[in-house]
Amino acid sequence: MEISLAQLAETIGGEIHGDPDTIIKGIAPFDDAGQEDITFADSPKILKRISQTGAGAVLVPKNFDPAVETGLGHAVPANLIRSENPRLAFAKIMNLYFPAPPPSGNISPKASVGENVALGTDVSIGPFSVIEDNVTIGSRVTIHPQAVIGCGVTIGDDVIIYPNVSVLARCVIGSRVIIHSGTVIGSDGFGFVPDGEIHYKIPQLGIVQIDDDVEIGACNTIDRATFGRTWIKKGVKTDNHVQIAHNVVVGENTLIVAQVGIAGSAQIGKSVILAGQAGIAGHISIGDYTTVGPQAGVTRSVPSGKVVSGTPEMSHKLWLRVSQVIPRLPELKRKIADLEKRLDTLLKP
Amino acid sequence: MEISLAQLAETIGGEIHGDPDTIIKGIAPFDDAGQEDITFADSPKILKRISQTGAGAVLVPKNFDPAVETGLGHAVPANLIRSENPRLAFAKIMNLYFPAPPPSGNISPKASVGENVALGTDVSIGPFSVIEDNVTIGSRVTIHPQAVIGCGVTIGDDVIIYPNVSVLARCVIGSRVIIHSGTVIGSDGFGFVPDGEIHYKIPQLGIVQIDDDVEIGACNTIDRATFGRTWIKKGVKTDNHVQIAHNVVVGENTLIVAQVGIAGSAQIGKSVILAGQAGIAGHISIGDYTTVGPQAGVTRSVPSGKVVSGTPEMSHKLWLRVSQVIPRLPELKRKIADLEKRLDTLLKP
Amino acid sequence: MEISLAQLAETIGGEIHGDPDTIIKGIAPFDDAGQEDITFADSPKILKRISQTGAGAVLVPKNFDPAVETGLGHAVPANLIRSENPRLAFAKIMNLYFPAPPPSGNISPKASVGENVALGTDVSIGPFSVIEDNVTIGSRVTIHPQAVIGCGVTIGDDVIIYPNVSVLARCVIGSRVIIHSGTVIGSDGFGFVPDGEIHYKIPQLGIVQIDDDVEIGACNTIDRATFGRTWIKKGVKTDNHVQIAHNVVVGENTLIVAQVGIAGSAQIGKSVILAGQAGIAGHISIGDYTTVGPQAGVTRSVPSGKVVSGTPEMSHKLWLRVSQVIPRLPELKRKIADLEKRLDTLLKP
Repeated sequence: MEISLAQLAETIGGEIHGDPDTIIKGIAPFDDAGQEDITFADSPKILKRISQTGAGAVLVPKNFDPAVETGLGHAVPANLIRSENPRLAFAKIMNLYFPAPPPSGNISPKASVGENVALGTDVSIGPFSVIEDNVTIGSRVTIHPQAVIGCGVTIGDDVIIYPNVSVLARCVIGSRVIIHSGTVIGSDGFGFVPDGEIHYKIPQLGIVQIDDDVEIGACNTIDRATFGRTWIKKGVKTDNHVQIAHNVVVGENTLIVAQVGIAGSAQIGKSVILAGQAGIAGHISIGDYTTVGPQAGVTRSVPSGKVVSGTPEMSHKLWLRVSQVIPRLPELKRKIADLEKRLDTLLKP
Repeated sequence: MEISLAQLAETIGGEIHGDPDTIIKGIAPFDDAGQEDITFADSPKILKRISQTGAGAVLVPKNFDPAVETGLGHAVPANLIRSENPRLAFAKIMNLYFPAPPPSGNISPKASVGENVALGTDVSIGPFSVIEDNVTIGSRVTIHPQAVIGCGVTIGDDVIIYPNVSVLARCVIGSRVIIHSGTVIGSDGFGFVPDGEIHYKIPQLGIVQIDDDVEIGACNTIDRATFGRTWIKKGVKTDNHVQIAHNVVVGENTLIVAQVGIAGSAQIGKSVILAGQAGIAGHISIGDYTTVGPQAGVTRSVPSGKVVSGTPEMSHKLWLRVSQVIPRLPELKRKIADLEKRLDTLLKP
Repeated sequence: MEISLAQLAETIGGEIHGDPDTIIKGIAPFDDAGQEDITFADSPKILKRISQTGAGAVLVPKNFDPAVETGLGHAVPANLIRSENPRLAFAKIMNLYFPAPPPSGNISPKASVGENVALGTDVSIGPFSVIEDNVTIGSRVTIHPQAVIGCGVTIGDDVIIYPNVSVLARCVIGSRVIIHSGTVIGSDGFGFVPDGEIHYKIPQLGIVQIDDDVEIGACNTIDRATFGRTWIKKGVKTDNHVQIAHNVVVGENTLIVAQVGIAGSAQIGKSVILAGQAGIAGHISIGDYTTVGPQAGVTRSVPSGKVVSGTPEMSHKLWLRVSQVIPRLPELKRKIADLEKRLDTLLKP
């Protein structure tokens, strides 16, 4: 694909410093880029060595002045496009050069489509996928091979469902949702009542609702609610191996990193970040814009706008100091014993 | 569905306080219930505000006396059913209103059924499920679409296997077992012998045996034994993303919460609770009726009847105190330094 | 199967102590073995009680002298085969008695094979597996039922892919690779750029490359690189539920135990061991021959040849001492308070 610098700058709303007629044929990371590639540089560290890229053009921050920041004057080897957010601009340009393949619009004759299924236009269904009865699917949806869409499920427009995904009965999926392979939406919540030594199963009658623009990673499990819905709100993105229990609500634009577990009925705010392997206890809430550190074990509600880490969770700033003391515990123990000995000696009659 | 209070009380063995002819059409949580719903209240907190539910009837504890506990006298707005265990009664009534759909008894012509397969009565097999050769399946078993039942597997009666489950060669599944989507039963144990720098694979010749009334969550992995069996005993319930290694034995009625990992040859007792994200080392044993806290790292055997938490595992009571000291470590370190300084000053000649 | 002791000794390069014509019909663990079985004993503990096995033959270390080590003189009940590595010898003999079934060479008429697919000889493909377009598969490859092999994937010789595995577009799999059920190779890396409150998806254009002799456990997720490749090098073995993020490189012969998570762009050396539930931060490196303990949280690069544990990671030796102090923290806190009080009293005017 051949795109001029002028076109690229227009696409991302950037300002060219160099030759607008330069033709760019591809994209590449800073150190791998060649004369026909565009790359980006947004950290001071990378910007310092901007003259070292072989790229034909570099996306840089709006206020980047090579004369000042590199001391190279105008001898910068590459054309520049200045923009507010070079990394975002780069991602947008990646989509220009490598657009997602359009839905084939083919429904494989090897798929199984049940009764009373409503399909929008340009729906693709791969071989051996199963669309059970009473399913509604919007337009331009791609269901890869071997997904199962259970009875009564509703799916919006422009959704991508990868192989070996299970979306179980009655769950509701919005538009522009992506669900990666191996993920299960709508498994039963883990609910039992003790009946003597036996655990009596509480029927799980609710659903999972996934709103627009959500991306669910590979091998996630999102359990259906006991009543009502487990609710993943607009713009949430989850990494792989995330476990979301019954009746959890995850607020808009929250990021959940790999192997996080959220126990039943927890309420996660909007624009929260849950870092890898963190665990969130049941029935607590995590406020909006809060960040939970990796492997943290959060057992109490956390207000909005906090950064917490550790087990038990504490402010991240405190955790950084605590984590410097932990390896020194044997030394502290010895010091205490020394102090006791000295004081004993001092007080000995 | 319309059921009278009298019938409901009889089903669960409860005692009516109110009008036995009241017709109940559904069930709902305490705060959502309407005049034709039944709900339950078993915590003191909920019982206190029993007059606030809109429910037509409330399941309450045997000894609940609204006159005493709410101070409302007999002005309680709803009919009551008193029983030993209102939560259990509610779960049973949920099953009355929302019974599991009976097995369709259909074997999809799109399923693949191998040679020498023995099927009981009313077996349902969804499209694209694969039943390999020499499989034995009991009666009223439902195999959802896209499950794989490997060669020589045996499955009891009244089993439900959800989509995208793999039950691999020769494993044995009891009756009334439920296996949720994405789960793998009978993958190879992680066994290698060093051969210089190379890891030589130890063939995994055993099986997984899952006894009656077990429920296995979504995306579990239960490895087959090297020899003999990995054994999940009667009544065990596992949540999602649980990892059970080769040759592990899990005792009757044990609960394993999401993302727990149990290493090879560990022995878990009966009626144990392993809370979320806990890790159990290989070759150790966890005694009957013991509870292991969330994220605990258990590296030594734990006797019966204990409650342990933390890494390293310790009594839960101790852990609660330890976890209050951890955030104060920087402060303790400073205090020790202060003490040293004061003592040095004191002892200075 | 009947194999003489002489043949077994020759296979593994061992030396017989006993009757070379003894016929061995099977293999079994030490305590279960009968007169026609061979077993092995390599730990001092087991060797001490070698006379207690019912086995017809025992694999023992090269320098094992029953007269010395058991005090039984030559009254050892079993034939012995001495070898450098009895455990390895045993694993090799297991493969002799229980050889992996040869590939059937059948391509199920119920599989879906796309266009421009190149297959070697003796390829087996199970029912409802999907081989998309432009796939290349070597010889003697077994693809179990319901695997998906995406467009443009390349697979070497003698590979085994279990049910419900997804190998997504363009990934490259070497020879003698085993991939267990439920695993996803080539899901998108978790890459987003903030665009206000929204997370803009960074297209993931790279692949996963898995080299020869790798074994990937069940329900693993290995994300494709943003650019280039996520690379699992020769001889790596992963247990179940392992998460490997985009652009990670895992060195030769590294072992990754269950539920480990490795964040983006981390570099894991060769012959590393990552124990269960450990977490490795992004963009750091773990040196060759280093071992990371269970549940460790590694946030800084670790040089070669180390053994680290804990969160934050520290030397394993230090961690062992730290983990003995942690349960004594409430006691240490009290001691500090006591010391303060005593010193206050002492200094009181």
